[in-house]
Amino acid sequence: MGSLFRIDRSKTALLIIDMQNDFLRIGASLEVPAGREIIPNIKRLRDVCREFEIPIIYTVFVTSPDTKGLMWLFHPEHAPPTKACWEESEGAEIYHELYPQANERVIRKHCYDAFYDTDLDTVLRSVGVEYLIITGVMTNLCVDSTVRGAFHRQYKVTVVSDGVACPWPDIHAAELKTFGLGFARVLKTEEVICELKCENEVKKA
Amino acid sequence: MGSLFRIDRSKTALLIIDMQNDFLRIGASLEVPAGREIIPNIKRLRDVCREFEIPIIYTVFVTSPDTKGLMWLFHPEHAPPTKACWEESEGAEIYHELYPQANERVIRKHCYDAFYDTDLDTVLRSVGVEYLIITGVMTNLCVDSTVRGAFHRQYKVTVVSDGVACPWPDIHAAELKTFGLGFARVLKTEEVICELKCENEVKKA
Amino acid sequence: MGSLFRIDRSKTALLIIDMQNDFLRIGASLEVPAGREIIPNIKRLRDVCREFEIPIIYTVFVTSPDTKGLMWLFHPEHAPPTKACWEESEGAEIYHELYPQANERVIRKHCYDAFYDTDLDTVLRSVGVEYLIITGVMTNLCVDSTVRGAFHRQYKVTVVSDGVACPWPDIHAAELKTFGLGFARVLKTEEVICELKCENEVKKA
Amino acid sequence: MGSLFRIDRSKTALLIIDMQNDFLRIGASLEVPAGREIIPNIKRLRDVCREFEIPIIYTVFVTSPDTKGLMWLFHPEHAPPTKACWEESEGAEIYHELYPQANERVIRKHCYDAFYDTDLDTVLRSVGVEYLIITGVMTNLCVDSTVRGAFHRQYKVTVVSDGVACPWPDIHAAELKTFGLGFARVLKTEEVICELKCENEVKKA
Repeated sequence: MGSLFRIDRSKTALLIIDMQNDFLRIGASLEVPAGREIIPNIKRLRDVCREFEIPIIYTVFVTSPDTKGLMWLFHPEHAPPTKACWEESEGAEIYHELYPQANERVIRKHCYDAFYDTDLDTVLRSVGVEYLIITGVMTNLCVDSTVRGAFHRQYKVTVVSDGVACPWPDIHAAELKTFGLGFARVLKTEEVICELKCENEVKKA
Repeated sequence: MGSLFRIDRSKTALLIIDMQNDFLRIGASLEVPAGREIIPNIKRLRDVCREFEIPIIYTVFVTSPDTKGLMWLFHPEHAPPTKACWEESEGAEIYHELYPQANERVIRKHCYDAFYDTDLDTVLRSVGVEYLIITGVMTNLCVDSTVRGAFHRQYKVTVVSDGVACPWPDIHAAELKTFGLGFARVLKTEEVICELKCENEVKKA
Repeated sequence: MGSLFRIDRSKTALLIIDMQNDFLRIGASLEVPAGREIIPNIKRLRDVCREFEIPIIYTVFVTSPDTKGLMWLFHPEHAPPTKACWEESEGAEIYHELYPQANERVIRKHCYDAFYDTDLDTVLRSVGVEYLIITGVMTNLCVDSTVRGAFHRQYKVTVVSDGVACPWPDIHAAELKTFGLGFARVLKTEEVICELKCENEVKKA
Repeated sequence: MGSLFRIDRSKTALLIIDMQNDFLRIGASLEVPAGREIIPNIKRLRDVCREFEIPIIYTVFVTSPDTKGLMWLFHPEHAPPTKACWEESEGAEIYHELYPQANERVIRKHCYDAFYDTDLDTVLRSVGVEYLIITGVMTNLCVDSTVRGAFHRQYKVTVVSDGVACPWPDIHAAELKTFGLGFARVLKTEEVICELKCENEVKKA
């Protein structure tokens, strides 16, 4: 699976999907405990990307009566009184351990796919990105939809198997298989970092 | 899961995804044996839909050098010499048991999602459809992508659990769970038919 | 032209396009003097819409190196050193006379069409809008592109002939003809207000 | 206007928009007499493109009850009994003088913009196109909408001023100005041919 293509670091971005308080905090209304376990891996990837000046883009899911679409039908926690990921609420903010730097862009979305009716594609094309490294939550919801959105728009995607999470181990495992079957390379954090650094070695040599 | 909404028959369409020779014939290059097992269920649904004048829309995946995008990278069977689902080939045609009537529309697509860069949305809106019943192959590839495409465009989707198929039982089971968690009602053929017919009884009463 | 349809006030939104400092202030880098002349008409429409609780949606064009696309090629004033409508700059803010209320939504866009890669469609569908009243600048650039974007997405559009503006009288006149030929009803402020109020009378009667 | 960029011939396609019988034949229901006058120029461009193996892509507007959207509201000639550009009718076919070769692709669309809900973008990306030469009818309807669709998707467009047409001279002239102001280079047939051939000379030298 890893041999389909290799990343060209100068045309790559790291995508960190929906690592928000209402998914990550202990006791949060939509808590995904497995989401906290991937934070160290995402941080390591992020550090390497910052070192190599690879753009880091965050997405957040935010909802409101004006933008609810069909989401509340399936996720009543987003509706009042719970108001998970409510627009401009603290719960919708990015978790403190992964809070973005001022120069890093945050894409706000109202559904699963970070490409759907957002400026993500415009941003990636404006800065010349063709390869995406994808991390975040949840594997089968926003991550999967965004992986598919990226594939349809011709991005070469690498999903980080230990950098994505959801609460259901069987679904998580099945998703990783599906990504590899039709949409993306599936690599571990360590392998992605190695590939990013190896390119450096090759270029130095 | 079944209680999120009920179908309004006058605003419903049946979608039959990619039931093509190159996926269904014995010995076909991309044969999905489980795909043949769902044919009787799709036929029963189709008969009921024809009876109630519910529009039936078929999709086909067709490929060519002009439209290959990234598909050949993941599915080299589509490239020469195999040329699975090649544009205008017999392999790309709909399997004889489900061949459409002259008045039933076929949507041609070049990737997984039947909404992506096709006129499916225009067709559905032109005929006033808000509810979709989705069947076909493969559960985790074209079916899943189309279910997500429909959800993002605000269609209320019912996936027919014994009317969709793929070769991997664990993935198939995980997909049905994911559909129910975030995108669609998941009902059996029998339940969908009952709902379509019940409406009739209610209206008669 | 006015007889193609009538507005259903309960399914209508008022769109105010790009009435920003860098287009409207005297001496602004992209000053459109004619844009100041339409402000009283837009304010009158806005007052009536607020009275009838018709949603009012504003768009702003904002640019940055991350989102420039091809815009800077045609409009070098957006690039440094001028930085017209630069993201988070004062010049990109909505002109003081039309500054939105806290409950009124602002759509940020990076190109001409307010539907392209923004959440405008999601917002309109979430609140049940099918009719749009369109005002703002410039008639042939962002207004025209947004009118076309709305038409393709099946919105019934009314362009306010004395509520849109651009610096070129011949182009402005030709645009109004084109809107009427293929995309929208073209009515004066007074006529739109009358139609909105008449509905009230009819319903009272 | 001509100096914004130069065409890279290896990444260019020629687009011929809606040169169909129902727009071009004498006495056709939607006859555009000016459309016949541009045929010689389009043929010259087409010959040069064939010589240099530049892809030639045709679009056709086709309509039917399933795909009518809002088009019939503005153009009742498309509805019965006239049925202009009706799906699979002779009137919807490409005019005989410009009939495509077997290896040239035809994009079917149901509205003005040839990118909207069609596979045009997928085709162009699959064959590596970044520059478009645009010709056809009508300047302010399908041509303009497609020019804008191309610009938003980051294609570098050249509109052929004497290769596009509509029945209204003032609108035609205003459109050419608008293209130049914000969306495209505007060049004459002769200038485009010269640029295509010059590149040859430069490369030979």
